[in-house]
Amino acid sequence: MTTSNATHDPQLRSWVASANQAGCDFPIQNLPFGRFRPAGSAEAFRIGVAIGDQVLDLKATGLIHTDDMNVLMAKAPAERQALRAAISAGLTEGSAEAGEWAKLLLAQSAVEMTVPCRIGDYTDFYTSVHHATTIGKQFRPDNPLLPNYKWVPIGYHGRSSSIGVSGSSFKRPRGQTKAPDAEVPSLGPSKRLDYELELGWFIGQGNAQGDAIDMDRAESHLFGVALFNDWSARDIQGWEYQPLGPFLSKNFASTLSPWMVTMEALAPFRAPFERASGDPQPLPYLDSSANRAQGALSITLEVLLQTAKMREAGEAPVRLSGTNTTRAAYWTPAQLVAHHTVNGCNLQPGDLLGSGTLSGPNADEAGSLMELTGNGKQPVVLPNGERRSFLEDGDTLILRGWCEREGAVRIGLGEVSGTVEAAG
Amino acid sequence: MTTSNATHDPQLRSWVASANQAGCDFPIQNLPFGRFRPAGSAEAFRIGVAIGDQVLDLKATGLIHTDDMNVLMAKAPAERQALRAAISAGLTEGSAEAGEWAKLLLAQSAVEMTVPCRIGDYTDFYTSVHHATTIGKQFRPDNPLLPNYKWVPIGYHGRSSSIGVSGSSFKRPRGQTKAPDAEVPSLGPSKRLDYELELGWFIGQGNAQGDAIDMDRAESHLFGVALFNDWSARDIQGWEYQPLGPFLSKNFASTLSPWMVTMEALAPFRAPFERASGDPQPLPYLDSSANRAQGALSITLEVLLQTAKMREAGEAPVRLSGTNTTRAAYWTPAQLVAHHTVNGCNLQPGDLLGSGTLSGPNADEAGSLMELTGNGKQPVVLPNGERRSFLEDGDTLILRGWCEREGAVRIGLGEVSGTVEAAG
Repeated sequence: MTTSNATHDPQLRSWVASANQAGCDFPIQNLPFGRFRPAGSAEAFRIGVAIGDQVLDLKATGLIHTDDMNVLMAKAPAERQALRAAISAGLTEGSAEAGEWAKLLLAQSAVEMTVPCRIGDYTDFYTSVHHATTIGKQFRPDNPLLPNYKWVPIGYHGRSSSIGVSGSSFKRPRGQTKAPDAEVPSLGPSKRLDYELELGWFIGQGNAQGDAIDMDRAESHLFGVALFNDWSARDIQGWEYQPLGPFLSKNFASTLSPWMVTMEALAPFRAPFERASGDPQPLPYLDSSANRAQGALSITLEVLLQTAKMREAGEAPVRLSGTNTTRAAYWTPAQLVAHHTVNGCNLQPGDLLGSGTLSGPNADEAGSLMELTGNGKQPVVLPNGERRSFLEDGDTLILRGWCEREGAVRIGLGEVSGTVEAAG
Repeated sequence: MTTSNATHDPQLRSWVASANQAGCDFPIQNLPFGRFRPAGSAEAFRIGVAIGDQVLDLKATGLIHTDDMNVLMAKAPAERQALRAAISAGLTEGSAEAGEWAKLLLAQSAVEMTVPCRIGDYTDFYTSVHHATTIGKQFRPDNPLLPNYKWVPIGYHGRSSSIGVSGSSFKRPRGQTKAPDAEVPSLGPSKRLDYELELGWFIGQGNAQGDAIDMDRAESHLFGVALFNDWSARDIQGWEYQPLGPFLSKNFASTLSPWMVTMEALAPFRAPFERASGDPQPLPYLDSSANRAQGALSITLEVLLQTAKMREAGEAPVRLSGTNTTRAAYWTPAQLVAHHTVNGCNLQPGDLLGSGTLSGPNADEAGSLMELTGNGKQPVVLPNGERRSFLEDGDTLILRGWCEREGAVRIGLGEVSGTVEAAG
């Protein structure tokens, strides 16, 4: 990823004071994009950039002339980078724009956000070999990791219509399930409702149908990333998923964080792509020297839970688990793009590629309750004494993510929260 | 489906002479919707109604005020039916509109069609138990029909971006495959490229997230149907599909016929929904008295092939197989809608529900080459001596469909054709 180093300069400070506070998710080195409107209004959503605890109305600055995020996402990388440089310059302490732009800020606490773009197609991958192995053991004890896993970046298509933004709640899904000892299946609310800790990678420029995107160009087709919770009903999944994959166990709701952190902002947090000894080298169409050297991105992730009882008692969410992408993901984002298009499939601006559940190698790095609780057999005990095998009504699940390393300013992905309501 | 019988009256004749010819797909009793523009123009596509060999420019009649098919599809059934009645009245022999509307016709041979609406999400089902059993034998000889099949209308999400309209061609997909005797997989053009004979059901009015659509209302959420070819690369599918289902083996291309035949037009061709003795009764959420009495629709389907050699020799396409939906489909369209939403998943106007490959019980009713040729082992021999195990470059595959019964005027779905190009 070529990008101006100037926008990552750790010395850079903004005239928006909150952006300069230590631990802030949205310093001037970040500049993620989202869609906002004043809270309580019925206005159309517009494109904003997060800075500190504020949102900059981007079109009002004159730097863009559209309210359509997908149009912005479709721009060539050089144009995106020029836009980023201009936003960075304008928000820098002492900039000529400071006076005008200060009038174009809204407090994040005073806006309503929506999903950051129009998602045409949503694909979910399965990039954590630890998740695949642990889940595989539960569905197929004799055959947990299938022979294709280390060759094929396994993926499948998901549902776009039911993707919501952080703060959403949804009804516990009903569905067909069949207990092992039952003669026939029955319909009812899911008893094994789970979350999945994922990242959602957004496509920027697309490709024409029939034209594969090779590894050297793959990452330039990515726009950025958000946190993604792919809620899953394990009992429905177990009964429905053969032979064509998960369907109603997944498509009732997924939840995205509102801010897309761009590939340009992530550039300081690159990491080598490593294969454990014994793992096969990727086929040539999934390999490149750039991918080996710096193909991965280091993003730290954590999962928090706040039950209804905790909320009523004024208790803060508790951390359930956490990991880092470099520990969890067997495939890099560029490999996902190259694989997805090798057959000529056309990606479009705004398409979403889910990482799949990001579980690290240790038990406390699991990205779902199914893994954390051994399929419900060892419930998690919360500080207030409550236990969770799977999610209960009123539970709010929160995912957080950030990037940090020495010599760079920490940037955050913000958070995505979602709440389970009782079945309708 | 309540609808005015007047629009099906077999005595009804149109002032568009070609619509009154025996065997015409688009008599006045049909009136399907599509999107057209003058061939060779760069105009925006507009909404048209097929009548005989002509297209009526619907907005120009003043009956609608939009160019957006999805807006029209979102209308309540009563509004749709009123629109149908008005179109029918205007096109009827002796109508007051005949003079004006005659100026609003374009020959179908002089227009370019596109996919009939904006498809947000595309779901593919697996409704033929014969297809599921035959394919199941090839992927899982010991376990062809899984225990869930007769309880769950099996479905999975597909790719919207790569759905094209009749007349499209596409490059043979490349992909990862692994021969049983190979140590490692390799990348190359698919050697087992196949078609799938399907119907595509379009959603009209959608539902809010969290609100299931029950059986009694399910069919009112369907707008109509088109022919659908879900091209499939069997060798890629075999290696990639476990555990999350088909992905790159399907998403390189699918092809739709241009005209949506409405539920109102299909009304005379209803048929009882029957279960063979020994088959379980559907769970209550998939059952209704209306579904039992008249839940199925009788649509006759056939598959034709024209190879490059045949095309060069001026030889017409040859018929490979054919069946009827009542022989092929284990689930009705209403059951697909009720199942899809039982978990609260929201459907939107323009969403597409594929039927899955419609194969009847007999060998010559198979809806794919994989079935017709016993997974390539018994090639089809064409009249000119060519053989086909799977599709070859230059092959054009054509699906046709129509409804007929005594006492009703035959209506057609037209056709969908698509051509395989060499891998890029």
